[in-house]
Amino acid sequence: MIDAADLTARLIRCPSVTPTEGGALVLLGDLLTDAGFEVHRVDRNGTPNLFARWGAKGAARTFGFNGHTDVVPPGDLGSWTHPPFSGHVEDGVIWGRGATDMKSGVAAFVAAAIDFVHQAPPDGAVILTVTGDEEGTSRDGTIALLDWMRDNGERMDVCIVGEPSNPEIMGEMMKIGRRGSATFTITARGVQGHAAYPHKARNPLHALTAYLNDLIAAPLDQGTDHFDPTGLQITSIDCGNPASNVIPETARAVVNIRFTDLHTGASVQADLTARADRVAQATGVALSIDTHISGEAFLTQPGPFVDLVRSVVTQETNRQPVLSTTGGTSDARFIKDHCPVVEFGLVGAYMHQVDERVPVAQVHQLKTIYQRILEKYFE
Amino acid sequence: MIDAADLTARLIRCPSVTPTEGGALVLLGDLLTDAGFEVHRVDRNGTPNLFARWGAKGAARTFGFNGHTDVVPPGDLGSWTHPPFSGHVEDGVIWGRGATDMKSGVAAFVAAAIDFVHQAPPDGAVILTVTGDEEGTSRDGTIALLDWMRDNGERMDVCIVGEPSNPEIMGEMMKIGRRGSATFTITARGVQGHAAYPHKARNPLHALTAYLNDLIAAPLDQGTDHFDPTGLQITSIDCGNPASNVIPETARAVVNIRFTDLHTGASVQADLTARADRVAQATGVALSIDTHISGEAFLTQPGPFVDLVRSVVTQETNRQPVLSTTGGTSDARFIKDHCPVVEFGLVGAYMHQVDERVPVAQVHQLKTIYQRILEKYFE
Ligand SMILES: [Zn+2]
Ligand SMILES: [Zn+2]
Repeated sequence: MIDAADLTARLIRCPSVTPTEGGALVLLGDLLTDAGFEVHRVDRNGTPNLFARWGAKGAARTFGFNGHTDVVPPGDLGSWTHPPFSGHVEDGVIWGRGATDMKSGVAAFVAAAIDFVHQAPPDGAVILTVTGDEEGTSRDGTIALLDWMRDNGERMDVCIVGEPSNPEIMGEMMKIGRRGSATFTITARGVQGHAAYPHKARNPLHALTAYLNDLIAAPLDQGTDHFDPTGLQITSIDCGNPASNVIPETARAVVNIRFTDLHTGASVQADLTARADRVAQATGVALSIDTHISGEAFLTQPGPFVDLVRSVVTQETNRQPVLSTTGGTSDARFIKDHCPVVEFGLVGAYMHQVDERVPVAQVHQLKTIYQRILEKYFE
Repeated sequence: MIDAADLTARLIRCPSVTPTEGGALVLLGDLLTDAGFEVHRVDRNGTPNLFARWGAKGAARTFGFNGHTDVVPPGDLGSWTHPPFSGHVEDGVIWGRGATDMKSGVAAFVAAAIDFVHQAPPDGAVILTVTGDEEGTSRDGTIALLDWMRDNGERMDVCIVGEPSNPEIMGEMMKIGRRGSATFTITARGVQGHAAYPHKARNPLHALTAYLNDLIAAPLDQGTDHFDPTGLQITSIDCGNPASNVIPETARAVVNIRFTDLHTGASVQADLTARADRVAQATGVALSIDTHISGEAFLTQPGPFVDLVRSVVTQETNRQPVLSTTGGTSDARFIKDHCPVVEFGLVGAYMHQVDERVPVAQVHQLKTIYQRILEKYFE
């Protein structure tokens, strides 16, 4: 029997701030090798990643888990009640960076997988993929693992990502997709001039203000069955003009859009460009848009796999989890191209905060849920 | 006879970039002393200023001129056809920084005043006030001269400011007032958060965008008989948020407003504050406003003095000058509290630009206009 809470504390003691491995993947690799898993380090461009499989490659039924051991920086060390990499345990609570996001989730599925294959060896395979870069650019993390799997004939039939999925209480929410996310940098270029002679200038800030006001006033959609409405947040407007009597030449805004499955990154870009063209024609100020798509919207349609996870969660927590697509992006956005994927994990309330911590009991509960899911899947 | 064009060239050769005296006021002081004027340097806090009077203090009729010898920096020296402080004369054109704004105007009224009092000594006085800081903060320039005059029992009955007043052609425009000017810095303070969870944040940029869009969409007035509509220019919006997935806490906009005589700086401030309160109530984002009033709107009502200047300009240029209140601020905004003031000078097309220059003939014409105005005034 693996103690998932103890493993969580040991992982917290590995200072694995992105992109540092910090000993976390070495610890898991040794543990899984000892437990009879075939283990491969799948590092790419300096990003550490771990692949582990119990059972035969290409088995008829293969269940996957995905998670990450990298953590965001601890911030102000002096603000922590216990040092962020201490893994301090007191009064049934484990403290430290990664306690919820998501060394506990990784510890829970590693412990569940080991105990499951030892107690009831399945007719199939269990694959664990753990990356050391989910919090950073993610360019050589889970993507590298999936690339390596494709190149090496490895396959998951279904996958659970162990990210914290519950806002407040265990069992209230699981995620079956995510809204897409894209960032647009809009540069307005007008004609500089004196504020007293605006007819000789073209104010890029007026065009930009009108453009942005139109965007926040007219939302892109009203949401769908499984998705909240597409959301738009202006995250920056900058101009850097120190002279209050001068109309500047250029100004720049950054807009982040979280979009439903009614859109793609490309269709949102087309919409924003069409609006920009209208403003440009009306004002004579050129608006150019630079697009960065972080992830497309996706949905794992409710069906047998979603039902399986949901029924186990309901049984173990006495709560019927909402099938949600809220929140930021996660590595599920890569896995969805490989196999059906859902996300279920701990309560995310403290993630990325000072004094991140998790109740020991919650980690044990999550391990039990994962083990029951494995049992039901291979029944 | 004083050659106003030659005096212009000599003044240009004094490198009097604000707040440097550069020899310009010394040159004028010597010239006026030699011509029989009573001359005082009225420097304050390091800013050089010159007061000169011909005739008795407190004479029944006293005519005033005002101007400045300081100039804005020359900018990129390599871009000038002739060095900016060379006062180079070629093909009937004087080149250099201050050629139009406004060493030529000062040279023209100094030459006109000297020749007038010598050729037809009036029953009254002529006062010349020349400051070395009109282009800078103006805190110790014309204001210091007016303060000194009040403290010393000096008085002007009317005053001409010799700033360039014609957009393109000599005689097309004189100024009988100015719109007021005020700068408002609006700081929006919301609640920081993650772009994927906007319900937990309050985006200051959305409140600011709505606020600014309202300002540019609904102008404050439609103008009056002598004033263009109140104009508003957003000159900067800044936030400085580097993270495209984070809703920032604060953002800041700077708005410059040029207002008609329907408003005061205080009434514009009250209007902007009322609008800010409405946006704050609707959005939960606090909007605070910092106000800097550069000058109130003012108008010298058309009457005998305005008619006198206008008739001489018409006679000498064959053009009926428009009575305008357009443009930025000038030191007329201070003089208007002392006596009726109008502005008439050269063509301002090249002011503050590289290759600033003026035709010799235009300087002579302006000197003639000033001299005719003096003759008519003291008739
Ligand atoms: Zn995470
Ligand atoms: Zn000037």
